[in-house]
Amino acid sequence: MTAPLSLELPGAGLQVQGLQAGRGAPLLLLHGWPEWSHAWRPVMSRLAHRFELVAPDLRGFGNTLPAATAPATDAGPERHAEDLLELADRLGWARFGVVSHDVGSFVAQALARRAPERLSGLFFFNCAYPGIGARWAAPGHLGEIWYQAFHQLPWAAALVGSSREACRLYLRHFLTHWSHRRHWVEHELDHWVEHFLQPGRLQGGFNWYASVHAARLAVIEGRAPRPLPIDVPTAVLWGVHDPVLKVEWADRLPEFFGRLQCDVQPDAGHFVHLERPDAAADRIERFFVGLG
Amino acid sequence: MTAPLSLELPGAGLQVQGLQAGRGAPLLLLHGWPEWSHAWRPVMSRLAHRFELVAPDLRGFGNTLPAATAPATDAGPERHAEDLLELADRLGWARFGVVSHDVGSFVAQALARRAPERLSGLFFFNCAYPGIGARWAAPGHLGEIWYQAFHQLPWAAALVGSSREACRLYLRHFLTHWSHRRHWVEHELDHWVEHFLQPGRLQGGFNWYASVHAARLAVIEGRAPRPLPIDVPTAVLWGVHDPVLKVEWADRLPEFFGRLQCDVQPDAGHFVHLERPDAAADRIERFFVGLG
Repeated sequence: MTAPLSLELPGAGLQVQGLQAGRGAPLLLLHGWPEWSHAWRPVMSRLAHRFELVAPDLRGFGNTLPAATAPATDAGPERHAEDLLELADRLGWARFGVVSHDVGSFVAQALARRAPERLSGLFFFNCAYPGIGARWAAPGHLGEIWYQAFHQLPWAAALVGSSREACRLYLRHFLTHWSHRRHWVEHELDHWVEHFLQPGRLQGGFNWYASVHAARLAVIEGRAPRPLPIDVPTAVLWGVHDPVLKVEWADRLPEFFGRLQCDVQPDAGHFVHLERPDAAADRIERFFVGLG
Repeated sequence: MTAPLSLELPGAGLQVQGLQAGRGAPLLLLHGWPEWSHAWRPVMSRLAHRFELVAPDLRGFGNTLPAATAPATDAGPERHAEDLLELADRLGWARFGVVSHDVGSFVAQALARRAPERLSGLFFFNCAYPGIGARWAAPGHLGEIWYQAFHQLPWAAALVGSSREACRLYLRHFLTHWSHRRHWVEHELDHWVEHFLQPGRLQGGFNWYASVHAARLAVIEGRAPRPLPIDVPTAVLWGVHDPVLKVEWADRLPEFFGRLQCDVQPDAGHFVHLERPDAAADRIERFFVGLG
């Protein structure tokens, strides 16, 4: 149902890899951590009848080259947004919709601030946005965010990648702890471990956390300037059982998105697109079809 | 210079292991994490001419039995204090001094609140005490405390202990990052890795963090009742370059210790007793001799 994507982006200096499927209105799907384009397969197979779907592996993630061979701090949302605008040009997309999750949701917001005229709509699962503010680091939430500090340590990828067992323990934790419906994890886990044990796959994802550290601290400390609301039509579907991005944090979305629809997804956690792919695909389709 | 200690404590249900040395006024030495009695060797060899030194491995730590084979939350400071009072009885110590560090400093304070009449004096390196309060979890300090959350995860010891390489990466980080003078680490690291790879050694230390989680959160959130000041003569020697227990946090010590001497140790970090054993032993000796 999906086919490999591989495109040279000379400006970005990337060989973008990922997945593509379908024909119709163009949709870009932006994955989170610990994910790569593969995480969009269930949703892509359900949307291919109506949309032209492209799920790139973000710089440093998945199979996109060059792989991240060392700790780096140069792959934040602005850099990814620049990469993706070159990708859209290369695809011949004048306007397109964006579906995003986790890391991808930061990138989607950077895209919307940089090139709103290119975007037909923004669809977020469990949207990480600046309105979360100091709640990220509330004392009761420290047990959920330790990995964001750990990932910034220059030896973290070596530890997690030191053996198949270590990598499996680590990924299994996040995939199960962050899911409410966990049936998908046992089927997928071996494939994810296999993927993340390839050179650079762990370090690439971890580099995201080092790259956004300063901006994240500014948000937590309330030092980040309040941006103007994003005016691109926006839909959010938030899994009510996400332990790391809590559904009650949706409360300030209207301050940051001027044209917002927000729904919650019962019986789902962080990975709505993997836990409830039928509901996820249905909501994406209704949103983008509704935009006309 | 030091000899093995091994004592049955029927009340506690422990076979306490550790180190002993010297003759003279009795001193109990309480280690931190990631340590066991071994960490006191350099200081013990320098104090044995004047003191009767006993460095036990705290419950769950080092070679004390039973080893911690599973995650548990029952080894907080009160439990350790109870163990140590039985140990003092078993040693025939009516009164004794306590030298402590890191985890041990919490235990020493519990001892001082429970049985002040048994204590001649308290000596702390870089004292973890309730006056640190919300500063533990300040946004700029999150990069230093992630391990306190990670250690509470039921799979953390399996990950760190999954291979010699993993264990070495993990311990090397804390021993070097927390030290200002790092010369001792390369000599010691293999021995520490060897030790912590034995069954239960990692889990035992990690259980401390699960055991103190609720109390720690109460301190950070300002919910912990303010205790009366400890009235046992107290000396603190604080390494000025400790990144996790910052020397500026000594500011509130006088509110918690009624009879306090506080000095700072230049050119040392978290492990003053390992980084600067001469200065550490000298300060301990002068304090306890000065008490008469």
